[in-house]
Amino acid sequence: MDLNAYLAERRQEVEGALDRCVPRAGERPARLHAAMRYSLLAGGKRLRPILCLASAEAVGGARAVALLPAVALECLHTYTLIHDDLPAMDDDDLRRGLPTCHRKFDEATAILAGDALLTLAFEVLARATPAAQLVQELAEAAGSRGIVGGQAEDLAAEGCEPDAALLDFIHTNKTGKLLRAACRMGALAAGASAGQLAALTTYAEKIGLAFQIADDVLNVTSTAQQLGKAVGSDAARKKMTYVALYGLATARTKAAALIAEAQTALAPLGAQAEPLAALAAFTIERSS
Amino acid sequence: MDLNAYLAERRQEVEGALDRCVPRAGERPARLHAAMRYSLLAGGKRLRPILCLASAEAVGGARAVALLPAVALECLHTYTLIHDDLPAMDDDDLRRGLPTCHRKFDEATAILAGDALLTLAFEVLARATPAAQLVQELAEAAGSRGIVGGQAEDLAAEGCEPDAALLDFIHTNKTGKLLRAACRMGALAAGASAGQLAALTTYAEKIGLAFQIADDVLNVTSTAQQLGKAVGSDAARKKMTYVALYGLATARTKAAALIAEAQTALAPLGAQAEPLAALAAFTIERSS
Repeated sequence: MDLNAYLAERRQEVEGALDRCVPRAGERPARLHAAMRYSLLAGGKRLRPILCLASAEAVGGARAVALLPAVALECLHTYTLIHDDLPAMDDDDLRRGLPTCHRKFDEATAILAGDALLTLAFEVLARATPAAQLVQELAEAAGSRGIVGGQAEDLAAEGCEPDAALLDFIHTNKTGKLLRAACRMGALAAGASAGQLAALTTYAEKIGLAFQIADDVLNVTSTAQQLGKAVGSDAARKKMTYVALYGLATARTKAAALIAEAQTALAPLGAQAEPLAALAAFTIERSS
Repeated sequence: MDLNAYLAERRQEVEGALDRCVPRAGERPARLHAAMRYSLLAGGKRLRPILCLASAEAVGGARAVALLPAVALECLHTYTLIHDDLPAMDDDDLRRGLPTCHRKFDEATAILAGDALLTLAFEVLARATPAAQLVQELAEAAGSRGIVGGQAEDLAAEGCEPDAALLDFIHTNKTGKLLRAACRMGALAAGASAGQLAALTTYAEKIGLAFQIADDVLNVTSTAQQLGKAVGSDAARKKMTYVALYGLATARTKAAALIAEAQTALAPLGAQAEPLAALAAFTIERSS
């Protein structure tokens, strides 16, 4: 399949839905809404919403049923980026090639824009079906036993000796759980069977880990222009990474093996899962 | 009725439920969970959860059906306090007589603890019935058209000329909408009729405004010990308040009139709403 054409088409669909779901910039409070739109509509791969839509299709559903969950995932993802970039956290100036939210606006507005996007994610999900299950899935992935917990341990681990168990905890929570939620939410919205859901869960867990390894590799090997943000920042901040722990070659091998395993997990879903197989490879090939 | 005995009993019920819903302090990430517990279990009036429980009872329901919504409301309220206290926002050192979360822990942990409590609110609600309606109610009250929007305009209004329309926007959103959601969520959880819901909504809107006026008055007339936080800070920061706009005497009269109107709105609910009537008076009499 032509993955680039596929991605372009899906992205356009996602962009349209995001634009409709976030309040207009002119609506009071205008600066807050402008900041939300700035960060949410700043481009990006839209990997999570696309995984969500593709997962709905992979279990025989229509994409339309997964559109609200897809929007919720990207709202939530964007909030994590805004807060992670704050001075008290990773203190980054550049994101997707643009000034980070607190650099473009101010710190208070960035905190509030993140809070509002996190809240918007659940507001959007309340309109989806099955709302209760979808809210539970996203909240569990996002909370102190998910993304927020991963970020907390990531910050705490700066400057510490590499530790494989801790690194797994950080990456599973900080990155893996939202990719897992993306696939599961698409499947749940499409009424997947238990077997289909299990296959997608395995797939998602594998690509989640591969994604993070690839991220660590790119932070070392990429240019700032390719990445849209500062490179080498992990090493500068003494972040615990797969590259620091295993070296570049082993990290790359491990990522490739995980992608193969993810693709194998899709077998029970048949041809409908072809886009997901292609997306698996994309998660480690991406240059931005 | 003996309001103090009533409040003590309900508070104990709420404290128990909060303690059960938030992860143990020892669970990884330990510092994050400690911060969440520190702020969530630091006392406080528990006005929102108690309003929620009382609203369920006022429409003939059992308190038990409103316990998860009550917990969600307090998790969400606590997150707003943590984030509002941050250096980039109101920059407060004291809250409920204790160091604020970022003073006790650090700024990154406080941002994350707030994020996690906001997320936990929706995780808890996903287990309640009717989940979709309850999530929608809370998310709308909390987002950029609710609390976050109110806080954004509140920060923007510092130092500006008093403006009645803007002040109403700020207070309605920053304080009023969550009190409104508290009453409506209790009623929704208890299966209220449209008429009952309308009566409670009017009641809640009146006490929401009275509550904020009382807050402005207390910031001028109270001592730091009574309030558990700095007094006179509104004037120091040139906050737009009801006292600044109308003067102390008019603000007090307006608050008392709103309480009377709130109590009148409860008439259709009969004797079951007696605790709500007492709680209305309590919102402007509280000393902390």
